[in-house]
Amino acid sequence: MTKLKWGMIGGGEGSQIGPAHRLGSGLDGLFEFTAGALDHRAAEGIEYGQRLGLGNRAYGSWQDMLAGESAREDRIDLVTVATPNSTHFEITKAFLEAGFHVLCEKPMTMTVAEGEEIVRVAEKSGKICAVNYGYTGYSLVRHMKAMIARGDIGKVRLVNAEFAHGHHADAADADNPRVRWRYDPAQAGVSAQFADCGIHAMHMASFVTGQEVTKLSADTVSCLEMRVLEDDAMVNFRMDGGTVGRLWTSSIAIGRQHGLGIQVFGETGGLRWSQEQPNQLYYMPLGGRLQVIERGEANLSPEADRTTRVTIGHAEGMPLAFANIYKDLAEAISARKEGREMDPAANLYPRAEDGLRSMAAVVAVAESGKQDGAWLDARPPMFQ
Amino acid sequence: MTKLKWGMIGGGEGSQIGPAHRLGSGLDGLFEFTAGALDHRAAEGIEYGQRLGLGNRAYGSWQDMLAGESAREDRIDLVTVATPNSTHFEITKAFLEAGFHVLCEKPMTMTVAEGEEIVRVAEKSGKICAVNYGYTGYSLVRHMKAMIARGDIGKVRLVNAEFAHGHHADAADADNPRVRWRYDPAQAGVSAQFADCGIHAMHMASFVTGQEVTKLSADTVSCLEMRVLEDDAMVNFRMDGGTVGRLWTSSIAIGRQHGLGIQVFGETGGLRWSQEQPNQLYYMPLGGRLQVIERGEANLSPEADRTTRVTIGHAEGMPLAFANIYKDLAEAISARKEGREMDPAANLYPRAEDGLRSMAAVVAVAESGKQDGAWLDARPPMFQ
Amino acid sequence: MTKLKWGMIGGGEGSQIGPAHRLGSGLDGLFEFTAGALDHRAAEGIEYGQRLGLGNRAYGSWQDMLAGESAREDRIDLVTVATPNSTHFEITKAFLEAGFHVLCEKPMTMTVAEGEEIVRVAEKSGKICAVNYGYTGYSLVRHMKAMIARGDIGKVRLVNAEFAHGHHADAADADNPRVRWRYDPAQAGVSAQFADCGIHAMHMASFVTGQEVTKLSADTVSCLEMRVLEDDAMVNFRMDGGTVGRLWTSSIAIGRQHGLGIQVFGETGGLRWSQEQPNQLYYMPLGGRLQVIERGEANLSPEADRTTRVTIGHAEGMPLAFANIYKDLAEAISARKEGREMDPAANLYPRAEDGLRSMAAVVAVAESGKQDGAWLDARPPMFQ
Amino acid sequence: MTKLKWGMIGGGEGSQIGPAHRLGSGLDGLFEFTAGALDHRAAEGIEYGQRLGLGNRAYGSWQDMLAGESAREDRIDLVTVATPNSTHFEITKAFLEAGFHVLCEKPMTMTVAEGEEIVRVAEKSGKICAVNYGYTGYSLVRHMKAMIARGDIGKVRLVNAEFAHGHHADAADADNPRVRWRYDPAQAGVSAQFADCGIHAMHMASFVTGQEVTKLSADTVSCLEMRVLEDDAMVNFRMDGGTVGRLWTSSIAIGRQHGLGIQVFGETGGLRWSQEQPNQLYYMPLGGRLQVIERGEANLSPEADRTTRVTIGHAEGMPLAFANIYKDLAEAISARKEGREMDPAANLYPRAEDGLRSMAAVVAVAESGKQDGAWLDARPPMFQ
Repeated sequence: MTKLKWGMIGGGEGSQIGPAHRLGSGLDGLFEFTAGALDHRAAEGIEYGQRLGLGNRAYGSWQDMLAGESAREDRIDLVTVATPNSTHFEITKAFLEAGFHVLCEKPMTMTVAEGEEIVRVAEKSGKICAVNYGYTGYSLVRHMKAMIARGDIGKVRLVNAEFAHGHHADAADADNPRVRWRYDPAQAGVSAQFADCGIHAMHMASFVTGQEVTKLSADTVSCLEMRVLEDDAMVNFRMDGGTVGRLWTSSIAIGRQHGLGIQVFGETGGLRWSQEQPNQLYYMPLGGRLQVIERGEANLSPEADRTTRVTIGHAEGMPLAFANIYKDLAEAISARKEGREMDPAANLYPRAEDGLRSMAAVVAVAESGKQDGAWLDARPPMFQ
Repeated sequence: MTKLKWGMIGGGEGSQIGPAHRLGSGLDGLFEFTAGALDHRAAEGIEYGQRLGLGNRAYGSWQDMLAGESAREDRIDLVTVATPNSTHFEITKAFLEAGFHVLCEKPMTMTVAEGEEIVRVAEKSGKICAVNYGYTGYSLVRHMKAMIARGDIGKVRLVNAEFAHGHHADAADADNPRVRWRYDPAQAGVSAQFADCGIHAMHMASFVTGQEVTKLSADTVSCLEMRVLEDDAMVNFRMDGGTVGRLWTSSIAIGRQHGLGIQVFGETGGLRWSQEQPNQLYYMPLGGRLQVIERGEANLSPEADRTTRVTIGHAEGMPLAFANIYKDLAEAISARKEGREMDPAANLYPRAEDGLRSMAAVVAVAESGKQDGAWLDARPPMFQ
Repeated sequence: MTKLKWGMIGGGEGSQIGPAHRLGSGLDGLFEFTAGALDHRAAEGIEYGQRLGLGNRAYGSWQDMLAGESAREDRIDLVTVATPNSTHFEITKAFLEAGFHVLCEKPMTMTVAEGEEIVRVAEKSGKICAVNYGYTGYSLVRHMKAMIARGDIGKVRLVNAEFAHGHHADAADADNPRVRWRYDPAQAGVSAQFADCGIHAMHMASFVTGQEVTKLSADTVSCLEMRVLEDDAMVNFRMDGGTVGRLWTSSIAIGRQHGLGIQVFGETGGLRWSQEQPNQLYYMPLGGRLQVIERGEANLSPEADRTTRVTIGHAEGMPLAFANIYKDLAEAISARKEGREMDPAANLYPRAEDGLRSMAAVVAVAESGKQDGAWLDARPPMFQ
Repeated sequence: MTKLKWGMIGGGEGSQIGPAHRLGSGLDGLFEFTAGALDHRAAEGIEYGQRLGLGNRAYGSWQDMLAGESAREDRIDLVTVATPNSTHFEITKAFLEAGFHVLCEKPMTMTVAEGEEIVRVAEKSGKICAVNYGYTGYSLVRHMKAMIARGDIGKVRLVNAEFAHGHHADAADADNPRVRWRYDPAQAGVSAQFADCGIHAMHMASFVTGQEVTKLSADTVSCLEMRVLEDDAMVNFRMDGGTVGRLWTSSIAIGRQHGLGIQVFGETGGLRWSQEQPNQLYYMPLGGRLQVIERGEANLSPEADRTTRVTIGHAEGMPLAFANIYKDLAEAISARKEGREMDPAANLYPRAEDGLRSMAAVVAVAESGKQDGAWLDARPPMFQ
């Protein structure tokens, strides 16, 4: 069991995302933190990387790291891109072209065209390009997907997802730079709350139903006057399997702590899950009674079993969900190295196509919001 | 403490609504069940009324009851109209014109024009015309309204309401006449699930914020193919105090039992309540911590105090909420009789204007649904 | 459907218990409030009774009421005794002996000997002597009993009940006369919190299992120093069907609002219910999954069906539970009048034997507490 | 940031405890898995250790490991003892005497005398001897302790803890060797469910109150007839700060998944926490309102802050709680190495004294159970 070699770009000292990725990648002992270009300031990045034990594989820039790692026999197996959003495209593309597997933070790109470019590059390179929609790593979200796939609730009629918090509700704090940039088109692009949070709920809707969003209509509002981009949005959508979708996202919902949740209703049953109680999945068969499916139960799906680490009744949380994305990637990479089929229950990590579709949805939401909720195609051109 | 005299039209043997009104009106001992035309079949209605103790004030038709009661010195103080929807207008109008106070079941009318007519007749008659949006009778819903009115959450930015159940999700049962008529335009009018359930959530949004809906955009769908009218709808709206609204209603949400709930977010706080846990109101002040307001607590509002009957910690439910509408009406009628001001905390029963506004909203939802979510005026002409 | 005639002793103006009984007895329209001796001050009682519409059947004392009602052809069908605890025995006994059905507030008596006397008198008179353990009126508590009786969880191994609130936790308020008397042996007898609240949980344990408590061991403490009687107690017990019992009661549990709840574990399943969420009953069959039984579901037991008034998803609360005791009594009395068998699903009201057993348990708890938890017989002598 | 070197004895292939310790120790990147004697079968242990990357520090026995590591300059900094219970004493003692820091799985020893011996050896050696009561690692459990220590609820009156599950309720499965040994005195010692689970709740009661148990009274029962040792116990106890305690533990509570929870009531407030919802702590100040303290909130205690890894609203679970014990130990060891004071907020890991006290409590519970609940001293002789 030699560990896979893992590198990270970004995630420098004091960031939240860096420790999260180190925790997630290291948690199962499948990856070893081997290389990094952790800061855009070369000296700081090298110094911090060395403190974290990277030795001479602590680089001063992603370009140096690309060159250095490309030149080695024992090059890293996977690189995580956790830099500012506007640089994701360039770095991801470069590493894919150089033959590295990549896990890119969301958003994968700033435009749909760039997203299509990444999809093409990834395909051409034959390398894995994963995107970090980490909430789908929860064991019971995966079980939900498995139940739907095997027909437990019949044809899916409707999905209702939400991601609503109140952490940007304070007008007195709205000019705080840490908050303000998110609502500034120059820095954040065409969308704020939907792009930041709502898209996780939309990806989860696709993930659990196995369907893609085809068109949508959005009502976007800025509840705080000084904001250009939306802090609250309601999105109605349709999916390619005929499912109707509803999605609410908000950053001004005071009293909601996180607010990621999803309900799915089919012809013969309904399912409900929320991140505030991630170890329980509520299921009602048509004509039956509400049941509480508990993480770690006997006889769940293989997808649930491989993503659960402690026995039933002990809570599991987000860091383990996140680690499941890395666990999937470790299996995908190892299977390739060993020339074998990968475990299908691991083949669930989000990929470039998801990053692209998300970008197209963000653009459609922003545009529909401007056009009084006009129904627009939510698909990227290459998938229309 | 002589009881007020109460009569009912409709609510015959075997109906659900009749016992509910008798329970609600009788619960506090403020009304005495005195007269009724309980069935459209004269003999059955009289016989049932006599069994319920009405004696010779058990009538064979509402016309007989109107004539009979009009001729008496000791005529009834309040008449409840609980007949099939299409007859509400005619009966309510006739009783108002004859000088009776009326409590009409929802919907008050089948068209907006009729609604306006009722509002004019009620105004001209000087009589009370209440409409039965009974969920606003919950003690903590009233406290929510009082908190918002006194500024506890500041200017209201957004309200998110829902009423989602799964009781019409079974395709095998969709042809059951008890279910089918609701989705048949010939019998139910322009809207099914929104008119039946969603409107309660919309009225509650108006009730707690003290604002009226001005315009709306709706996405209406029929998840069961054989249905003409919608079984699921998402409605975005705006209110006359600047509040943004979102409202989801569904009858195919398997696993949801009732699903009436409301969240209100203001500049300085948020509030959350749902009928599944009606004795708790969740409140978070901006920058503070989530608090659980318990029905029956010390130092709540007068509106909460007068609508609570058992001490803290003992659950109260829907029948008592419903009785609160009658309690309001008893106070309104008694105050008139005694020539005094009524208790302002009782002046909260829904009235003809609410019935009219609801009808206009139903029409707008149905029309917007047909027009791909076009934003339409939600107000009745007389209030535009 | 002529109403039964109902009278009350005690429950004068300003009391909590009077309105609760009037609401409970009147809620279904089965009883008419006909007579009363509502206050120990004759004039006040008569005046208040007349205001409530009792006319010349508003009496100045229970003795006058006993004489007056005994002399009438149309005497009351049921009398509720809601006077101070120390008078329950005398009044209940007198009315039973005069041939009235009685509903006595708890505690039925102040001593075990008095309790045995009531049981004998009731038996001899052939009249109903009910005791008001009202929490067993909840629809799902009755369904719990029905499930256990029909074997859904197999032989019952263990029951764990609790009734824990924090309303007497404030040392600064402990000398408030409204609170103090409960902890004063001269006024409250041998036990405070167990006799006041814990006994409801113990009665519920007997009610749902269908077993009686045989012996017990108690740890009683006074967390507030100035108190003589206990404000917290843990009671372990055994039942005559072999079930092990645990019961915690407290009045110093700050943050607990009411705290009545019960869990029952059998050989093939477990059940859980609490008054804070009275419309849900949690059930797990051995080897199965946790299910949420919802009040008002289809295909529940007859015992549940007859005690539910609004459809599924609408909350029901304590006042309706309380009314169910009156509903049982109306059926019991009507069946006797009509010379027919009563509905077995109504034959569930608590009776004199329960009042007696409770008194014996209170004495045993107090004594065991003094004897360091010695195991004592919990049965009254006549049932040993 | 060089990692500390960590070794493990036991936790061989297929065990649950081994991966849990590897995950916990590795999660923050503070320890490196360096050495191990993972299996009592020498060849298997060495082979498995080598697969896990231990190279020539994969040993065939703990004796070999003790010799090998003692001889090295770069010996391991901490050894975890995760072997069968009966061997804990011998191994822990040997490693302490050789100058290693030890984390021992619970129970630390099989007898009180052995426990006292470990305490003496640890003291003499000057080395850390920690015991793995991992549930106290939850961030909000630590915040609870901090709130109580700083007086937020005043003098603590009462603590009520429970640990109740239903995983050993199936009579048909009781002879399964995986279950049976726990109830067999020859293998498990004097106590089953209390020693296995209840002791965690008792340790938590001591942890959060900062008080030790002085005496106790227990009611122990075997609900399944074939069992010698108890599968359900109720323990009443007293603590050295005057607090009253109640503790229920069960393995036959069908429908309870894990059931670890604790409620603490003081003179000026109450606190409630349960593992099923570990990211919320319920707090009510006397005379105030129930508040929901959320893990990751601003302005919590230093003890909470250092044990939280993801932002508010994202669930955290048991593996991170467990890792917090290792995080404490890393700080304790590093501080010693660096000759500085350790962070007081990290000085919370359970230690040999806790292991000893737990063993004494287990013996007292078993003995009190045999003596009909007699009150017995719960302290080890050396602390009496």
